[in-house]
Amino acid sequence: MAQHILSAFDRDLESIQAMVVKMGGLVEAQLVDAAHALDTRDEELADSVRKRDKAVDALEEQINEEAARLIALRAPAASDLRVALSVIKIAGNLERVGDYSKNMAKRTKVLLQMPTINGSTGAMRRMAQAVEGMLKDAIDSYIQRDDKLAADVRARDIEIDQMYNALFREFLTYMLEDPRNITACMHLHFIAKNIERMGDLATSIAEQVIYLVTGEIPDDERPKSDSVTLANHPEV
Amino acid sequence: MAQHILSAFDRDLESIQAMVVKMGGLVEAQLVDAAHALDTRDEELADSVRKRDKAVDALEEQINEEAARLIALRAPAASDLRVALSVIKIAGNLERVGDYSKNMAKRTKVLLQMPTINGSTGAMRRMAQAVEGMLKDAIDSYIQRDDKLAADVRARDIEIDQMYNALFREFLTYMLEDPRNITACMHLHFIAKNIERMGDLATSIAEQVIYLVTGEIPDDERPKSDSVTLANHPEV
Repeated sequence: MAQHILSAFDRDLESIQAMVVKMGGLVEAQLVDAAHALDTRDEELADSVRKRDKAVDALEEQINEEAARLIALRAPAASDLRVALSVIKIAGNLERVGDYSKNMAKRTKVLLQMPTINGSTGAMRRMAQAVEGMLKDAIDSYIQRDDKLAADVRARDIEIDQMYNALFREFLTYMLEDPRNITACMHLHFIAKNIERMGDLATSIAEQVIYLVTGEIPDDERPKSDSVTLANHPEV
Repeated sequence: MAQHILSAFDRDLESIQAMVVKMGGLVEAQLVDAAHALDTRDEELADSVRKRDKAVDALEEQINEEAARLIALRAPAASDLRVALSVIKIAGNLERVGDYSKNMAKRTKVLLQMPTINGSTGAMRRMAQAVEGMLKDAIDSYIQRDDKLAADVRARDIEIDQMYNALFREFLTYMLEDPRNITACMHLHFIAKNIERMGDLATSIAEQVIYLVTGEIPDDERPKSDSVTLANHPEV
């Protein structure tokens, strides 16, 4: 970052941003552990992810209050106001990534009671790792105000969509092959969808960074996998 | 509401609250129309829901900026700060209900290319209507600062969970009966899950209202359907 004289607003903002970075670290760990628990069928780790979600929620609450207090105290001009609001948005996105990780952990516990669907574990792992990388880079791009890195995160979302589409078809195949796979596949499909949504949330964070740095909101329409189907993949 | 002398903060807040109420109305209409489009296989209505989502997003943006401007201008004390933050939270919840409605509309268009799963339409309609009622009452409870009504909304969430659980089992049955139903059932299942999530979001709004009125955050654990399974129903 270029050196510049910090205003009172900037100084206060830095301490809130440190909380956002901490929250990013917590949430990244939640996703990594949730994916690992799913991959290795580790019930204890899944339980630990579930329990730790409260700390993520508490941190979001704290960030929101501090950001509001900052706004109230410093009465910032329009551009600084937007910076403070972006903190609230990014914390909100991180909180939802935390929720999806918790949900993965819950479904992992359910899946432990069912037969393993072997074919999918590699693809699920790769998808989770790709999203972990996006989330890490989104947070780094925020810390460094690096709009190039943020644009890169945004561009990678299309790969996640493609991975999700492939998994969707794979689960359909397993269900058609053997109806006893249906329940497990529905849970796995929800997990895949949640991972895909976490990719969307990392992308949202990256878009906030692009906005902070350039003042421009990226085009409304993200690059999306145009392969198979909008059909199989409405993005909510 | 008891009469009291309005502060400058209160007056400004009222105009923002009017925007929240307007947003609530828009979002309610989106859900009603999305459910109706699904029920009657109405592609045109589904398209219209998809298009109108942008207006919902724009309104959220506007509410966030006005709320931040209010905080900056009036430098409110802690309790008023929380009121202003709750506006941002409620608008965020409404925006997500809007997203889920848009998603329902997208999946409806996909489902039009597939055979109808007749058995489920009644149950889906009832579930959507129950959530519409919760959303309407949550917004009314906010307008009237009526914590009793908000508590009622919160209590009704359990019924939605039960409806969702029943639909989950129903879709499993259809898939087992005839593998050609699998794809359509997976989309319907996602829609059911999204409706259930909209119930959660209405409940979150109700909890914000309870917090505003009583100063207490309701217990972390909501009443949840303890029937069948946490198994079939992790709540993200």
